[in-house]
Amino acid sequence: MTGVDFGKRFAEDRHAVDDRLAVILPDESEAPASLHGAIRYATLGGGKRLRGVLCLAGQRLCGDAHPCGALEAACAIECLHAYTLVHDDLPALDNDDLRRGKPSCHKRCGEAVAILVGDALQALAFDILSHAPAPSGNVLEAVRVLAVAAGSRYLVGGQVADIEGEKAEPSEERVRFIHERKTAELIAASLSVGAAIAGAPERTRTEMHQIGRAAGLAFQIVDDVLDLTGSTEAVGKALRKDEKRRKITYPAHFGVQSSRETARRLIADATRRIEMLGDDGYIRHLFSLIAERSS
Amino acid sequence: MTGVDFGKRFAEDRHAVDDRLAVILPDESEAPASLHGAIRYATLGGGKRLRGVLCLAGQRLCGDAHPCGALEAACAIECLHAYTLVHDDLPALDNDDLRRGKPSCHKRCGEAVAILVGDALQALAFDILSHAPAPSGNVLEAVRVLAVAAGSRYLVGGQVADIEGEKAEPSEERVRFIHERKTAELIAASLSVGAAIAGAPERTRTEMHQIGRAAGLAFQIVDDVLDLTGSTEAVGKALRKDEKRRKITYPAHFGVQSSRETARRLIADATRRIEMLGDDGYIRHLFSLIAERSS
Repeated sequence: MTGVDFGKRFAEDRHAVDDRLAVILPDESEAPASLHGAIRYATLGGGKRLRGVLCLAGQRLCGDAHPCGALEAACAIECLHAYTLVHDDLPALDNDDLRRGKPSCHKRCGEAVAILVGDALQALAFDILSHAPAPSGNVLEAVRVLAVAAGSRYLVGGQVADIEGEKAEPSEERVRFIHERKTAELIAASLSVGAAIAGAPERTRTEMHQIGRAAGLAFQIVDDVLDLTGSTEAVGKALRKDEKRRKITYPAHFGVQSSRETARRLIADATRRIEMLGDDGYIRHLFSLIAERSS
Repeated sequence: MTGVDFGKRFAEDRHAVDDRLAVILPDESEAPASLHGAIRYATLGGGKRLRGVLCLAGQRLCGDAHPCGALEAACAIECLHAYTLVHDDLPALDNDDLRRGKPSCHKRCGEAVAILVGDALQALAFDILSHAPAPSGNVLEAVRVLAVAAGSRYLVGGQVADIEGEKAEPSEERVRFIHERKTAELIAASLSVGAAIAGAPERTRTEMHQIGRAAGLAFQIVDDVLDLTGSTEAVGKALRKDEKRRKITYPAHFGVQSSRETARRLIADATRRIEMLGDDGYIRHLFSLIAERSS
């Protein structure tokens, strides 16, 4: 493993996803220009591409078959993630004016267009994924994983529980329910969609999905700790909003120190398990970025 | 063709879709209960199931292979359609309080939950469709057709053009752009998704898609004529809203009489072409319902 520069590989993967997204998203010149401009604004705004990169890494870990299919899948996942951010920021939901240091989509394009941008990005995710160049059985399995993760039992279910949590008594069970759904599942799906594209057997895909859930839960805990302890400049969005809204979070319920320890424990578990699947160190590197990130 | 009761077949198909939807939608007892209750409210509210039934009819016309797969696909299309209605009715979009004679989703569940109900229904559409029991190549093709129809180039693009049209100079080109996208494409996709599930060759699927576009355009024209001439009681939603909002519609641009003739001409064309594909009269019956409906 000596000499392998995982930081460089991460930068290359990020750029590959960014470059492919820029090509694959409809051009602003295509009608309706306002919609396509807003879709590009919401998607190409400089995210970390962690989910897309995890998809590429998952596909490589499972034998590196169909790399171009994995790149399409990575773009699809980033479109889906971008849609969730656009809708989360809406006035009726989190009402956030700032995203990645820039005006959020509805601040720039108005509420109606922002709702429709999110709707179109979700459809685009399934459009891009379903056209990925890989055997149809592999691609269909990837569509299944992403559609389940995006649905009412996971991503959207977590969002609703999050909103309702503002008025409810916090409990460990409730915190976990929200976090596992609204964040962890898409991170888990990123790894296992990559594995599906590569044609990995079901047992491997399931194990990768569970590993991704642990890492994804850690991601959300670190996010909430940053909301409490970070600076707006570094994090690129308005902070201390969880507190104001009485959101149920790990640090609010267990304290910052204990939450940091939980995140570290989850990452250690994910790291140990992904190593057993033969990770060359890259996915562990990505997990360590989740645990140690400051923005 | 004598003796075949297409009205009875339509009623049976509608019930098959309704019954399957009631089973396949997550139960209200599943957490978050509020979300799953709202999803069922928005989806099981007594629609005509025209799109789902066209999917079943399209699959039968193409050899009747994988009927259970077609039923799942029909439910998926109805979920997608239900999502578009929930989001269309939102205050930031059409701001409609009434849908199918009942309070629209956001009037009943609040704006935040209504946005999330729509989001979950779109994901659920791809979840249900991707799990349809049929060969993976057929199912994947169906996913592609539905995802493209739902995206920024069609359904959502038509919605944005519709909103922007309120402030624009009406023209025939603009009316067609809006109607072909916001309505006709999903009706076209309903027929061709059914054909894809049955494994029809590409040429047949393309022809069915084009036939569906003509019928779908007629559907929207009739809808806009009803908005101008119908009664709220019969149609089940608030009327004359297009006029108030200066929406670009066929009757507003060409007058009621000329619009009715255009709809009839489109249906006649679709009827002639579907007959050439071997329709036993059932799809023609469905098309005639589009042309003659009064609600």
